[in-house]
Amino acid sequence: MQGKRLKELAEHVGGKVRGKGQMIIKAVSTLDKAGAGEITFLSNKKYEPLVKTTKASAVIVAKPVETDAALLIAEDPYYAFMQIVVLLHGHRKHKKAGISKGASIAKTAKLGANCNVYDFAVISDNARIGKSCCIYPGAFIGSDVKMGDNCIVYPNAVIYDGCEIGSRVIIHANAVIGEDGYGFATHKGEHHKIPQIGKVILENDVEIGACCTIERATLDDTVIGMGTKVGDMVAIGHGARIGAHCLLVPQVGISGSATLGHHCVLGGQVGVVGHIKIGNMVTIGAQSGVGHDIPDGATVLGTPAIEANKTKRVYASIQHLPAMRKSIRQLEKRLAELEKADE
Amino acid sequence: MQGKRLKELAEHVGGKVRGKGQMIIKAVSTLDKAGAGEITFLSNKKYEPLVKTTKASAVIVAKPVETDAALLIAEDPYYAFMQIVVLLHGHRKHKKAGISKGASIAKTAKLGANCNVYDFAVISDNARIGKSCCIYPGAFIGSDVKMGDNCIVYPNAVIYDGCEIGSRVIIHANAVIGEDGYGFATHKGEHHKIPQIGKVILENDVEIGACCTIERATLDDTVIGMGTKVGDMVAIGHGARIGAHCLLVPQVGISGSATLGHHCVLGGQVGVVGHIKIGNMVTIGAQSGVGHDIPDGATVLGTPAIEANKTKRVYASIQHLPAMRKSIRQLEKRLAELEKADE
Amino acid sequence: MQGKRLKELAEHVGGKVRGKGQMIIKAVSTLDKAGAGEITFLSNKKYEPLVKTTKASAVIVAKPVETDAALLIAEDPYYAFMQIVVLLHGHRKHKKAGISKGASIAKTAKLGANCNVYDFAVISDNARIGKSCCIYPGAFIGSDVKMGDNCIVYPNAVIYDGCEIGSRVIIHANAVIGEDGYGFATHKGEHHKIPQIGKVILENDVEIGACCTIERATLDDTVIGMGTKVGDMVAIGHGARIGAHCLLVPQVGISGSATLGHHCVLGGQVGVVGHIKIGNMVTIGAQSGVGHDIPDGATVLGTPAIEANKTKRVYASIQHLPAMRKSIRQLEKRLAELEKADE
Repeated sequence: MQGKRLKELAEHVGGKVRGKGQMIIKAVSTLDKAGAGEITFLSNKKYEPLVKTTKASAVIVAKPVETDAALLIAEDPYYAFMQIVVLLHGHRKHKKAGISKGASIAKTAKLGANCNVYDFAVISDNARIGKSCCIYPGAFIGSDVKMGDNCIVYPNAVIYDGCEIGSRVIIHANAVIGEDGYGFATHKGEHHKIPQIGKVILENDVEIGACCTIERATLDDTVIGMGTKVGDMVAIGHGARIGAHCLLVPQVGISGSATLGHHCVLGGQVGVVGHIKIGNMVTIGAQSGVGHDIPDGATVLGTPAIEANKTKRVYASIQHLPAMRKSIRQLEKRLAELEKADE
Repeated sequence: MQGKRLKELAEHVGGKVRGKGQMIIKAVSTLDKAGAGEITFLSNKKYEPLVKTTKASAVIVAKPVETDAALLIAEDPYYAFMQIVVLLHGHRKHKKAGISKGASIAKTAKLGANCNVYDFAVISDNARIGKSCCIYPGAFIGSDVKMGDNCIVYPNAVIYDGCEIGSRVIIHANAVIGEDGYGFATHKGEHHKIPQIGKVILENDVEIGACCTIERATLDDTVIGMGTKVGDMVAIGHGARIGAHCLLVPQVGISGSATLGHHCVLGGQVGVVGHIKIGNMVTIGAQSGVGHDIPDGATVLGTPAIEANKTKRVYASIQHLPAMRKSIRQLEKRLAELEKADE
Repeated sequence: MQGKRLKELAEHVGGKVRGKGQMIIKAVSTLDKAGAGEITFLSNKKYEPLVKTTKASAVIVAKPVETDAALLIAEDPYYAFMQIVVLLHGHRKHKKAGISKGASIAKTAKLGANCNVYDFAVISDNARIGKSCCIYPGAFIGSDVKMGDNCIVYPNAVIYDGCEIGSRVIIHANAVIGEDGYGFATHKGEHHKIPQIGKVILENDVEIGACCTIERATLDDTVIGMGTKVGDMVAIGHGARIGAHCLLVPQVGISGSATLGHHCVLGGQVGVVGHIKIGNMVTIGAQSGVGHDIPDGATVLGTPAIEANKTKRVYASIQHLPAMRKSIRQLEKRLAELEKADE
């Protein structure tokens, strides 16, 4: 790593330098661990005191702060930080391997130029893979899958037959795309499997976390919209439609046929029931259980999920519930005595 | 796809036609997407208005409804729908591959006739696989595993040594069957691993979702009963016993040594603690936490899970909790004044 | 299995025999299933009645109990039981396979003596694997991974590049270690991926359950402390630090940058938000949602998690909430009448 001058970094992110613009920055680090030749950043107010004591050579900030370090002042410090991490460290490099002889590739499959397909990866009949994709060991691409350019499929991820993957999609290890939806017709006490002939569509720039499961549906498609980032271990049900640019953090569960608008943010372990409609730009707090439609722009929390500020007040009151019960009983007794006295 | 006459479909499902029985139906689709030559169905009241506007040639219904489409009247429309999807579209076809040379099969393993074992699948020592099974790439069958006929093990699913799998069992991608139970003896602050010598038994017609984990136990067996369907990402603890024909939807967790009767239905993200007994035909609402035995036929909800109607009333009241607290304080003040006046 | 004399077992665990010390014990079983030649144990009071009726030849107990079986009296019966299961049954045996020709091992990788690397396992560039490790089929060891001695990596588990694994670490099937943290910089409505250059460190004697996901972080390391046992399907976020000797049971979720002390116990489906500090020896009840720092030694429960006894009282009261609301309204009415009368 050769490093860049602080001035160059500032130009790269459209920011300004306060301090020695000529100094060489070689790496990005955290406020408490950064040392000479390293740059760090402040985006969470909680860590502001650390800016004074940091040993970093430079700090990315939104506004000037008191510190011995040089400052890179940027409008959106976290975004500037991201750009600088990309510039100085880069994204993961994938070994140039071409199409390994140790992979299993159907004769009827087609791959674009510059793909890496590693040992023990499987590409099934009639699959269409775009340019510059990396298919890691043990990854399984089912028959008739379509995939765009510049995708990464990490080890042992599985894409069932017929699914459609856009460009620049990243699928982490052991995620499963397009397994059969949970669809059974119960008749006389037995559950009969319904063929699941829908497919899963991951649009451009989607990222799917490790060990996610995204079901196909009986007839409809399950869709994850453009630019949506799905954390680890998220379960998405048959026929659900997730809009563009959503953030679904780990362990979220979305039931079948639910729809989410664009730019929704779902906290950890949130559950959404089936056949409901969540609007655009909705924020749902961690562990919430959502059972009803949610309008655009709402912020909800709790089980059942209601307006978040209401739930916060409930959370603040709930420990007083036993005492409240006692108070009511005492009130009833005192009131009965007064009533008696008044007779 | 050649299609069938509507009359033939009606005969196939034991239903009646209202309209042109001779028309050819080629595919099944949804109420809003179906077009000419397609059949759709109504089983959820919520979608009844769509029957009027559907462009489908025919609709499967329980009772006559007003629509331009022909009707296929069946007692159980969803079951009829399932039968017709199977008839017109069929279940997933598996490539005839026989035993691939690219698979790793122990000399001591035995396989029945007509199996497909694909590249990079592993079948370990002394495993016994029945007839007509499909073992997908990357699937791992441990030593001494017994498996019946007509099973499907999807890519990268893992069955640990000694487990017993019935016939017509489906195990989806990346599911794990028979990993070590979470069993440790804590002594002087260290957790010592207890060998897990029990096994997992999946009875006939069980389906296991993607990324499920079903633990073996120290001494007992973990059992999933006949016909039970387990959704994606369900965790089942060591020595749990799930009865026949249960539905466990995604992200359910069952702790060790819990038992469930037959025909139980567990909603998404339900948690069941260990060593308790859930009766037969119990329904547990989504996200519930079950800490005590539940009698046969009960419908429970909430954390802790109690009778569902009670919890629904709690859910309806809970947002008023802060206001209730305020009311109690005001009542106390007003009452104190009255009491004072009465002295 | 040859078996051991009861006397020998007692000596092995530092216990005493009451009854025939010369009898041969061949296996360990449960109280209700054990028969002649078998030993069982009592550690859960709930099962005490079964000791009278057990057909086991011997029972491990803390204190003498009335039974026809011989007794092995040990201070910590569950620990003695563990020692005897290890002695009589042993841990899983791994097939001696050496380095399979069917594995894919980079030329620049180095392995210690006595490793088993099975078919379709992948060991990438510059990986360093210690002595006596078992790498099961389909397991993926990324480039620059360091691993100590006597580790077991079960089928299809994935370790991303650069992670550090101690000695005697067990990683169950389909677990993922070191996938990219959920780190995005959102700018003008789009989420930009931040390179995740931190690594995951699993210290000595850690066990990771099936289908776990342990994220790497942008800059920091994610650390699982010595001797900590992680159940199935646990999601651990980027930069989290879990102390030594913790127990995290299945489906727990720990968000990024949270820290846990040593000897913490987290129940099933617990969620911990990011950037908080959980002390040492903290116990968190199942399904709790932890949103704030927790001091050493606390036992908490509920969402939001507070002192467990308080939450238990809340749980006992909550079903009365609708009735309480009604009572308050009645009180208000009665009080208003009294106030009127008093005017």
